[in-house]
Amino acid sequence: MKALLLILLLSLQGLVQSACLTRGTGDMGIIIERASGSVLVIDTTAHEVLSRIEGLGDLSHASAVFSRDERYAYVFGRDGGLTKIDILCGKIVKRVVQGGNSIGGAISQNGKLIAVSNYEPGGVKVFSSADLSLVADIPATQTNKGKGSKTVGLVDAPGQRFVFALYDTGEIWILDMKQPDKPALSKFTDIGRLPYDGLVTPDGRYYISGLFGEDGLALLDLWHPEKGVTRILDHYGKGEQQLPVYKMPHLEGWAVAGDQAFLPAVGHHEALVVNMKDWKQSGRIKLHGQPVFVMARPDGRQLWVNFAFPNNDTVQIIDSETQKIIKTLKTGKGTLHMEFTPRGEEVWISVRDQDEIQVYDTESLTLKTRLKAHKPSGIFFTNRAHQTGL
Amino acid sequence: MKALLLILLLSLQGLVQSACLTRGTGDMGIIIERASGSVLVIDTTAHEVLSRIEGLGDLSHASAVFSRDERYAYVFGRDGGLTKIDILCGKIVKRVVQGGNSIGGAISQNGKLIAVSNYEPGGVKVFSSADLSLVADIPATQTNKGKGSKTVGLVDAPGQRFVFALYDTGEIWILDMKQPDKPALSKFTDIGRLPYDGLVTPDGRYYISGLFGEDGLALLDLWHPEKGVTRILDHYGKGEQQLPVYKMPHLEGWAVAGDQAFLPAVGHHEALVVNMKDWKQSGRIKLHGQPVFVMARPDGRQLWVNFAFPNNDTVQIIDSETQKIIKTLKTGKGTLHMEFTPRGEEVWISVRDQDEIQVYDTESLTLKTRLKAHKPSGIFFTNRAHQTGL
Repeated sequence: MKALLLILLLSLQGLVQSACLTRGTGDMGIIIERASGSVLVIDTTAHEVLSRIEGLGDLSHASAVFSRDERYAYVFGRDGGLTKIDILCGKIVKRVVQGGNSIGGAISQNGKLIAVSNYEPGGVKVFSSADLSLVADIPATQTNKGKGSKTVGLVDAPGQRFVFALYDTGEIWILDMKQPDKPALSKFTDIGRLPYDGLVTPDGRYYISGLFGEDGLALLDLWHPEKGVTRILDHYGKGEQQLPVYKMPHLEGWAVAGDQAFLPAVGHHEALVVNMKDWKQSGRIKLHGQPVFVMARPDGRQLWVNFAFPNNDTVQIIDSETQKIIKTLKTGKGTLHMEFTPRGEEVWISVRDQDEIQVYDTESLTLKTRLKAHKPSGIFFTNRAHQTGL
Repeated sequence: MKALLLILLLSLQGLVQSACLTRGTGDMGIIIERASGSVLVIDTTAHEVLSRIEGLGDLSHASAVFSRDERYAYVFGRDGGLTKIDILCGKIVKRVVQGGNSIGGAISQNGKLIAVSNYEPGGVKVFSSADLSLVADIPATQTNKGKGSKTVGLVDAPGQRFVFALYDTGEIWILDMKQPDKPALSKFTDIGRLPYDGLVTPDGRYYISGLFGEDGLALLDLWHPEKGVTRILDHYGKGEQQLPVYKMPHLEGWAVAGDQAFLPAVGHHEALVVNMKDWKQSGRIKLHGQPVFVMARPDGRQLWVNFAFPNNDTVQIIDSETQKIIKTLKTGKGTLHMEFTPRGEEVWISVRDQDEIQVYDTESLTLKTRLKAHKPSGIFFTNRAHQTGL
């Protein structure tokens, strides 16, 4: 009887321990498996997959943010689904379908609120990060077709604020959620035609919106919203020749190194260099194809670039100081996303058509290891919890 | 019998769960209790003390770094003790007394190595972060008294490097640990008299050493070590009048906001503003006392300053844009250290003589809550794991 009891106790102990991991979460992350509606939970120290969580719906173009304790990820699906997952227990905590067609979200500075921007119906919804209950519903301006404008480019900013753009009506709105029961909106209109994406600089100061309907970018200084929206980089965009654009680049992929920003050109095989003191273009770097993401290594010394079809089998690495390409890697077809480890010693790259993640050493620029994944796209590490605008 | 079994099982389950916490570690931190040789483990979301860990030896002037998974803290004591603690289980994992009198340490970019700089005997020892076994022992240059120079200002830098200064012999050394069994040293001599502390800029590029024996600071560009050490800010220091200096300011307290750095003046009631493009002084801000730490809120919009005796009951807050003081707080005697939450919505301040931690909202600049602590000094949050030079 004693032996039986011991076996029972040990197996229960095993169950308790296997159900959820007791471990630090600072070296964890998730990888979106877009075709199967699942995510992998990974360990960046051991280079291991810890679990697969299924049932997240349509994850094409999905993105994610992390809770301030780095235990939970909030995954924004294209189908309007918002899923809270527990990366220690490898399971879904809660899932709501909050809109018909969504395009990303953000977590507030204090970690208490999750905002989601929607295409269909337009507008932004704000949820409690604890239980995904609705806190605020912000409808967008009506278009002349009688529908709410699509909302895009949603980011968080210091002071419990969210910032986003209205695609159809050409606006930027600041949503101040300091008093969650009294959402306060500041609206900037006529900011340019068809803003399609946005970013906030890593310090949380400047919100920048890309325009699909005209060239140039719209800039808002969040330290001085009273100054209104100004236009920068007048030639940024598709340009007079109306080049074919295979994929509009992600503005979130802006890289900042020192006081220079590096951004993907639209339609051209180039990265642009912008002086952040005056927001004027100071250079351009010829590339292998149309860039999608231009990402800075955390120390700003290198920029890693991936490309749109048909060049999406390649990654190029630029030295930020000399602005020269120092290496061209053939990673494989469907190279979709890159994520640096927090202190930049590695970069993880998703290669969809090879069903794998490739991990590179960023000093030797060589492949360290590969992990299997089903059609991987976005890679998100927990240290994003500690950063503004990610 | 079944009931007994159930009770036994439940109590075992309770034990397993209570021994160590299953939770995210991104919102955790530790507070040094200097008088009692203990640390508090805290939760910055709940504003709670989770555990107290005792037996860490002499913790006056102690500092700490975190493992890359944010589960373990490595605490550097003044008595040469290096203690690895597990913040989920609230206990010491291992403790070694590695030198006679130490002055801080650093963790390598990949998280595998812990380096400690020693006063007595001089030199740097490098340990495995896993088990604190010795990996490398780097003796310092002998002084003409036949002892190794004191080593100070030890920081980590990208590329598995550590950088530190030799107090007695006026040197800066770069220690490259890419091959742990073949430590590679680059030595820079005649860098100035009596370097007493050092810092690396947040991007890991510039190492700067303060000089006790003369005015000015020694600067080394780690992207271009071949250019050697140069001198900047010739008037930085005690100056011709040989002012009484109550406490040499911490260089680690340099704050960077945009391309300006704000640093504590030595002996003067001032913060200095330095343009990082040319490393020239661009301004000075009058303060309430001799500053010890000048810390930037993570978004760079505010600087929080504490002071040396007899003004160590005060904190002043500077607007980085206008360079004006926007608030003076009377926090209480023995205000020793400040730590911002990762995204800057709060700052935690240790007030030794009141045996408490005060938590301020950085937008309203008002007190949110207090926590009890025994003679608290340094406060260290886990997000330091993800940052260079902290």
